Amino acid sequence: MVQTFDFFFSYGSTYSYLSVMRIGNLCADAGVQVRWRPYNARAIMTEQNNRPYVGKPVKTRYMWRDVERRAAQFGIPFNGIPPYPISPSTLAHRVGLVASQEGWCPEYSTAVYRKWFIEHKEPTEQTHLASVIAGIGHDAVAVLAKADSVPIGNLLDSETDEARRLGVFGSPTFAVGEEIFWGDDRLEIALKWWNERK
Amino acid sequence: MVQTFDFFFSYGSTYSYLSVMRIGNLCADAGVQVRWRPYNARAIMTEQNNRPYVGKPVKTRYMWRDVERRAAQFGIPFNGIPPYPISPSTLAHRVGLVASQEGWCPEYSTAVYRKWFIEHKEPTEQTHLASVIAGIGHDAVAVLAKADSVPIGNLLDSETDEARRLGVFGSPTFAVGEEIFWGDDRLEIALKWWNERK
Repeated sequence: MVQTFDFFFSYGSTYSYLSVMRIGNLCADAGVQVRWRPYNARAIMTEQNNRPYVGKPVKTRYMWRDVERRAAQFGIPFNGIPPYPISPSTLAHRVGLVASQEGWCPEYSTAVYRKWFIEHKEPTEQTHLASVIAGIGHDAVAVLAKADSVPIGNLLDSETDEARRLGVFGSPTFAVGEEIFWGDDRLEIALKWWNERK
Repeated sequence: MVQTFDFFFSYGSTYSYLSVMRIGNLCADAGVQVRWRPYNARAIMTEQNNRPYVGKPVKTRYMWRDVERRAAQFGIPFNGIPPYPISPSTLAHRVGLVASQEGWCPEYSTAVYRKWFIEHKEPTEQTHLASVIAGIGHDAVAVLAKADSVPIGNLLDSETDEARRLGVFGSPTFAVGEEIFWGDDRLEIALKWWNERK
């Protein structure tokens, strides 16, 4: 049986920027069919009392320096520290699930993160999301309406339940079957794990 | 000027086990003179309200699985989950500073971590420390007396101050001059940074 390779991430996560920009090429090179699975990391982290940066300025300062250094290492653009933290809306996640169902989640997620990290515009705002969706050739009004529907709300809940069941506590997390790997810095290790068990 | 390469760590840190077991060979291969600098991570983390595992069972479970996987990856022994967390005593740190002054901090730190991770005995207890010190050929009574002295207490404070000044918030942290790298998974990146600037 070919092991699944799942990319659980949340649009409010800073380190997920690096993974969103890297995972497509890395998985293509490795022959991995990756499933992009936006989930509600904030809900899980809140219930687990896991607040890695709130009220922690020293750790937060390091996080941005580390993201900047890693971006440079991988040749990913970094335009200084973007707005952070962003609002707790799940609209970007729900659009991500629509995109995932329709097969354009990678392009969408990349565009969302460019909006946030390069243009410094919060991707949670509806007008910014509409611009992202239209910018990659989709009908923003139709997509936003679908993102706001009950089935997509239920799908966000069930994806978050699945992340919770796997023991996910942060974003990004890569799951190879039931084995989870947390953090952009574990992406290569997760791919190696997959390759040794495929 | 040759950049300094500092290894700030704390004997209660789990991931520091991996670094303690790895750093000697890696630095020797890279031609790096590493300074082993035990400091009071708990004091800094408490004042920064940084409690990564307390009350976080899901994250803690992952941490142990990750440590186990990384130990296997590097050929480092792992004997199941040791006692954790350990008591907040700083005696192991103060002995580490004596060892550092006298040039045997690497052997001591390795033996402390073996006591904890392989024998599953808390290294903060004085009897266990005495056995560690004697086991590597030093006079346990004399060393423990020196570790309990005012100058060593002051040295622990000043080393912790230096870590604080650099922006350290957890253990292990590698400092190349003023640039810090947090986590065992950043050891190779810190060495590369050093190598490009030496």
